[in-house]
Amino acid sequence: MVENSINNKRKNMIAKGQLPDSAYYAVIFSSEKSENMDGYLEMDELTMKLAMEQKGYLGYESLSNGNKTLFISYWENMDSIQAWRVNATHQMAKSKAGQWYKRYLSQICLVKQSHLYENYVG
Amino acid sequence: MVENSINNKRKNMIAKGQLPDSAYYAVIFSSEKSENMDGYLEMDELTMKLAMEQKGYLGYESLSNGNKTLFISYWENMDSIQAWRVNATHQMAKSKAGQWYKRYLSQICLVKQSHLYENYVG
Repeated sequence: MVENSINNKRKNMIAKGQLPDSAYYAVIFSSEKSENMDGYLEMDELTMKLAMEQKGYLGYESLSNGNKTLFISYWENMDSIQAWRVNATHQMAKSKAGQWYKRYLSQICLVKQSHLYENYVG
Repeated sequence: MVENSINNKRKNMIAKGQLPDSAYYAVIFSSEKSENMDGYLEMDELTMKLAMEQKGYLGYESLSNGNKTLFISYWENMDSIQAWRVNATHQMAKSKAGQWYKRYLSQICLVKQSHLYENYVG
C-alpha cells in the first residue's frame, strides 16, 4: 500500500507552455527504492512542495514501476538548482538517501533542444 | 498483452562504468502511446538494436507505467546523436510517431554533473 501511494503520486507529465523556448536545465533522478521507506512519504511530500515554490522551478515528469522511479525536474538555470540543493530540508532528505535507496543516479543536464508533440482528440 | 510486451522490455537501468567521467549527452524521450500500435514492437526492437550498434552509444534507462514511458538514451557527444538522427530506419520510425503517440517530448541534453550511488547487498 505504501508502494502504491508512493507510485500513484508520480504520473505527472510536462504540458505545453511549462518549458521555455531558451535553454533550461533538467535534473534526472533515477532510483531504486530499498525495503526501508520509513519517513519517506512525508519527506517526499514536503520536498516536492518546497521545490515547487523555488524560484526557477519549471515542472517535473516522473514514472514509477515497482520500486524503480525515473524523476526529472526542470529548472530555469544552474542558480535555481544550486539554491534548491543547499535548502536545509532538501539536505535533510538527502541525508536519508542511503536508507531509502538501493541505488540512485543523479544527473544535472543543460537542455539544448526540445520538441513537444501533442495530439489529444476529444 | 501487446502493452505488456512493450513495457516488460523497458526496465533497464544504467550500471556503474557505463557513463564516462567527462561530459556526455542524454536524450530524454517522454511519451504517451496511442491505441494504434500496429507495427510498433517490430520497429522498436529494430531501432533499439541499431541504436546500440551506433558509435558513441552509451546505454539507456527506461520505465513505463500504463501507456506512458520515460526513455533516456545516453551518448558520447552530439555527433553520435546526429548520426543516429539521420539513420534511415530511425527516420522511418519517426515518420510513424504521429500514429503511435498521443504525445511526446524529446529533449537533447548535455550532462554536466552526475553522481551514482549503489548499495546492493547479497
